[in-house]
Amino acid sequence: MTEQYKNAVQALLWTGTSLRVLDQRQLPEKLVYDEYHDAEGVSEAITTMRVRGAPAIGIAAAYGVALSVIQHCAENSADWQQKVAKDIVMLAKSRPTAVNLFWALEQMKSLLDKSITNNPQAVFIACAEQIHADDITANIKMGELGANLLVGVKGVMTHCNTGALATGGYGTALGVIRSAADRQSLKVYAGETRPWLQGARLTVWELAQDGIPVTLLVDSAAAWLMKSGAIDWVIVGADRIAANGDAANKIGTYSLAMMAKQHNVKFMVVAPTSTIDWTISDGNQIEIEQRDKNELLPNCFNTEGSLVGAWNPVFDVTPAELISAIVTERGVVLNPNEQGMRGIR
Amino acid sequence: MTEQYKNAVQALLWTGTSLRVLDQRQLPEKLVYDEYHDAEGVSEAITTMRVRGAPAIGIAAAYGVALSVIQHCAENSADWQQKVAKDIVMLAKSRPTAVNLFWALEQMKSLLDKSITNNPQAVFIACAEQIHADDITANIKMGELGANLLVGVKGVMTHCNTGALATGGYGTALGVIRSAADRQSLKVYAGETRPWLQGARLTVWELAQDGIPVTLLVDSAAAWLMKSGAIDWVIVGADRIAANGDAANKIGTYSLAMMAKQHNVKFMVVAPTSTIDWTISDGNQIEIEQRDKNELLPNCFNTEGSLVGAWNPVFDVTPAELISAIVTERGVVLNPNEQGMRGIR
Repeated sequence: MTEQYKNAVQALLWTGTSLRVLDQRQLPEKLVYDEYHDAEGVSEAITTMRVRGAPAIGIAAAYGVALSVIQHCAENSADWQQKVAKDIVMLAKSRPTAVNLFWALEQMKSLLDKSITNNPQAVFIACAEQIHADDITANIKMGELGANLLVGVKGVMTHCNTGALATGGYGTALGVIRSAADRQSLKVYAGETRPWLQGARLTVWELAQDGIPVTLLVDSAAAWLMKSGAIDWVIVGADRIAANGDAANKIGTYSLAMMAKQHNVKFMVVAPTSTIDWTISDGNQIEIEQRDKNELLPNCFNTEGSLVGAWNPVFDVTPAELISAIVTERGVVLNPNEQGMRGIR
Repeated sequence: MTEQYKNAVQALLWTGTSLRVLDQRQLPEKLVYDEYHDAEGVSEAITTMRVRGAPAIGIAAAYGVALSVIQHCAENSADWQQKVAKDIVMLAKSRPTAVNLFWALEQMKSLLDKSITNNPQAVFIACAEQIHADDITANIKMGELGANLLVGVKGVMTHCNTGALATGGYGTALGVIRSAADRQSLKVYAGETRPWLQGARLTVWELAQDGIPVTLLVDSAAAWLMKSGAIDWVIVGADRIAANGDAANKIGTYSLAMMAKQHNVKFMVVAPTSTIDWTISDGNQIEIEQRDKNELLPNCFNTEGSLVGAWNPVFDVTPAELISAIVTERGVVLNPNEQGMRGIR
C-alpha cells in the first residue's frame, strides 16, 4: 500500500473499548463519527447504513461482538456467553445479503464455543482486530493482482463504493483502481449508484482525496459510455459470491456486466475470500435485500393510499459467465465457473 | 381520449397574448406557472427545462414565435419580420437534440416567408394553436395504435416522462399506457430517470392523478426487473428519429433497449411524425446534448481545481434493430428500418 493511503479516512476506528463509526450518510458534506459501546448500537449502524460495504460490515459486526463480550463480562453475569450469543443473532439480522457479516460472526462465535474463561475480552478483541487487519492485507494483495490485469488499460469504470470506506481500509475494486493509478495513467469513471449515491458521494470523494481525477456519470449512461469506447474494464466489488462465481453486488451491477459483454468491455469482480459463500452452488440462492420504498419516493407520495409504490432491491446477481475475472487475495479466477473457483478454496 | 384526461394538468396554457408555462422543475411538490410575453422568455424556459419533452418544446417554441410577432408588430416596427426571424434563430438554440423544436420553428418560419401584412398576429397565433391541437390529436391516435400492440400484456415499463407534461396533452409513450390501462389491467413500472428524475417526479405523479397505480424503480434496476419476468414491453418516447428508425431519447434508453433484447422484452418507441428527421439517414448524425456537470455533482465538488468532473449527456441513440415497434400517428412501423420508415413518410 502506498504511504498516502495509510492516511485515508477510515470507516471504522477501534478505540480499545468502543467502536467509532463514520456516518457515511453524511458524506461528503460532513465527517461525523458516532461512538458505539454495545452490539445493539453497531447493529443499528449497519441496518441504517451509517456503515456499509460488505467487508466493512463484517469487521463492524466482529467489533460488535467484542463490545458485547466487554459489556456482559463487565456486568459479571454468569451467563455472559448466552448474552453474547444472543447479540450475535441480533447482529446477523442487521442486513441479509453481504456474507462477510455471517463469516465474521462465525469467526467470533467459534471463540464462544471454546468457553474461554481467562480474560475473554482480550481474546475477542484480538480476534476482531485480526479480522480487520487481515482485510487490509487482503485488500492490498487484491490491489496488486487486479492492477496486473490492467497493464496498458486507459479507462475503467466502477460502481457503488468499494474503497477504504467499504472495507477495513484501502478497498477492493477501488483498491485495484488505486494500485493501477499508482502505476499508470488511468481515466476513472464512477457511476452515481442510486438510490444512496455511494458513487457520487463516497467514491469520487475518496479518489479526489487520493489525488486521482474521476468523472461521475448517471448509472443509465454507462452503456453509452461503453459505446463511446472510453472504457476497457468495469471493476466492482461483491457482497456475496456463490461457489460457481455468480456474484451479488449493488443493484445495477448485473446490467453493467451485461452491457460490458455487449460492448467487448471486460468485467472484474474484486472481493476477499470472506465474500465467497461456499455453501451455495449458484447465485439463485442469494437473498436479495429489499429496502424501504421511502428511500426512493419523493415525500409527497409517501401517503396512505398513495397509488405510487416503489420496487427497491439494493442488490442483484451477476452470472459468472458475464465476469472476466474474480480477483481475491488468494489469486485470480479468469472466466470463473465452479471448477475455477475451487482453485482458490 | 377518455374524458378524465381532458382535465389533466397541462404543461402549456396559451392565454391569447401570453404563454403560461408550468415550471416542471418544481413538481410534484409545487404547481407553479410562469407567464411569458416574449420569445426570449420562452427560449429561457426551454433551456432551463421549466418545460421539457420533445413535443412540448416544439409547441412552446411555436407560441414563442407568435409572441415575437405580437411584440414586434405592437412596436409598429417596419422590420418586424427581421426581428421575428432573429427570435426564431434564438429559439432554435434553446436545446439541440429534440427535432420537434426545429420542425415547429420551420412551420412558423414558412409563414414569415409569405410576407403576411393583414393581421399577422392572428395568423401566427392560429398556426401555433394548430401545431398544439395537432399534437394532441396525434397523441390520441398513437395511444390507440400503441394500445393495440399491448393486448393481453400484463406489465410495462417506461422511462423519463412522456405524458401530458411532455406534449400538447395526453402523451406519447404515456398516452399508450393510459389508453392500454383504460382497456385492461396493466402493471406499470417507471424508471427514476436521472439526473432530473422526470420519472420519479413527473411520470408517477401524472399516473397517480389518472388513478393508475405505478411502481418506481432506480434506473439501474431495470435489467433485474426484466429478469424477474415482470414486464413484457418497455415503452418510451423519442426526441429525434432518423430516417432508418434509430431513435434518440433520454439517456438510459439505449441500455433499456439492449437489456430488453437480452431478456426477450419488446421495445416500443412512441412519437409523432414531427419527431422524425428525414434529413438524416441514421442516428450517428444526431447531436447529443451535454448538460452542465453541476446538474450531477454534489455541491462540494463544484470548486475550482476539483478533481471530480462529470460526464452528463442527457440523450443517447437506440439503434433501430433494438426497437420492436415505432408508433406514430400515421401508423406503426414494426421492426423498423429505412424501408419500413418510408411507409409513414
